[in-house]
Amino acid sequence: MWCQSCREEYGEVDAGTCKECYEEASETEEELKREIEDLKSKVAFLRLSPPSLELNLSPSASAPDFLLVASSHPPSSTPAVPAHRAVLISRSPVFRAMLESDMEESRSGMIKISDVSYDVLRSFVNYLYTAEILLDEQMACDLLVLAEKYQVKYLKAFCEKFMTSKVNNENAIINYAFAHRHNAKQLLEAAVSLIMDNMSTLVERSEYKELVEKDPRLVVEIYEAYLNKQVNTAPKI
Amino acid sequence: MWCQSCREEYGEVDAGTCKECYEEASETEEELKREIEDLKSKVAFLRLSPPSLELNLSPSASAPDFLLVASSHPPSSTPAVPAHRAVLISRSPVFRAMLESDMEESRSGMIKISDVSYDVLRSFVNYLYTAEILLDEQMACDLLVLAEKYQVKYLKAFCEKFMTSKVNNENAIINYAFAHRHNAKQLLEAAVSLIMDNMSTLVERSEYKELVEKDPRLVVEIYEAYLNKQVNTAPKI
Repeated sequence: MWCQSCREEYGEVDAGTCKECYEEASETEEELKREIEDLKSKVAFLRLSPPSLELNLSPSASAPDFLLVASSHPPSSTPAVPAHRAVLISRSPVFRAMLESDMEESRSGMIKISDVSYDVLRSFVNYLYTAEILLDEQMACDLLVLAEKYQVKYLKAFCEKFMTSKVNNENAIINYAFAHRHNAKQLLEAAVSLIMDNMSTLVERSEYKELVEKDPRLVVEIYEAYLNKQVNTAPKI
Repeated sequence: MWCQSCREEYGEVDAGTCKECYEEASETEEELKREIEDLKSKVAFLRLSPPSLELNLSPSASAPDFLLVASSHPPSSTPAVPAHRAVLISRSPVFRAMLESDMEESRSGMIKISDVSYDVLRSFVNYLYTAEILLDEQMACDLLVLAEKYQVKYLKAFCEKFMTSKVNNENAIINYAFAHRHNAKQLLEAAVSLIMDNMSTLVERSEYKELVEKDPRLVVEIYEAYLNKQVNTAPKI
């Protein structure tokens, strides 16, 4: 028989589907692609332009009505990142609680965000407007922390997915500790799984020694998981 | 052979694809579905909550800073629809030009929109925040007009798609004239195609007679399209 897709001949053992199912599947694929195009246009429509960092000369324009300031250690003077209260409120329940109440931040129109660099804060705000960002590992890590703090679930999941795709033998222990601290379950599982694949070299690693110093309970959890796996995969006698 | 999809037997003439292509197609389908889920979450993230129509008691909240008022004929007193300048500017180049300049509307913080009902205006503003709406034919028609006026391309396309799906013999002429007036190419083509399928009864229709009265050039265009089709599909001698 001839395959309608790759146009090559195949025998009985290599049979895939009948014609009807093939045609149905092709239609489904077309439909799914159309749905993707529709959703992409919808995303493009819903994106907002992040506020310009330039001084706004026209006071009647839709000027941002809130400022976010990165306050890092050591303190440095970085420019504030402007934003609209309506956007902050819509993206984060923490901002909502803060800005819809009579809290200091709401009255002053400004919030200081500690332990974050200007670049990360700017990317964070940018993401709240556009749902777009070019991540590297450091940025994903910094943004995940910020997204967790302000409960921007979608951004947190996005960063976690990125970090999970980058877990390797070298960074597994660090990622394991990080995932623990920030409730990143998917990342945690990926890291633990890699660590367990390399138990023989574990105790020699400097990150391991550091973790034993800093947070031995996390190390205990690794051993518990390892033991559990051994018990479950041991051949039954 | 057995079809891997429907699990039924098939013969050589009903052969669809080989196993490899079937498996590849299944994987592609899974990937497309995952992409759709991702895009749906992105849409949910990017949606904004439309401003409440209730009086806002907390002045520090992210109160809307602009009002849209439906001014219909005959004039009636309807409540204004509140919105944020930042959202209006981001969704419509017309609002952008209006609000980023020193135009009357920008200074007064209010715009009167003529020939539109309160319900349509409210749905329009709602859509600008959420990209969500439940359409019926009248609403699609009214919103398409508004979307064209304010150059909200995505909403116009959405309404046009809906209207195109509803074109039938009864409303083809009305939709044809409407599509002409509002540059709705897809709707125009669907309507013309249906009109040409029913040329024998065309002149008896009351909408036809009305159109001849009101805008005979549009009627001429129908005949020209019809003639053109006849010439092109006539058997060559």
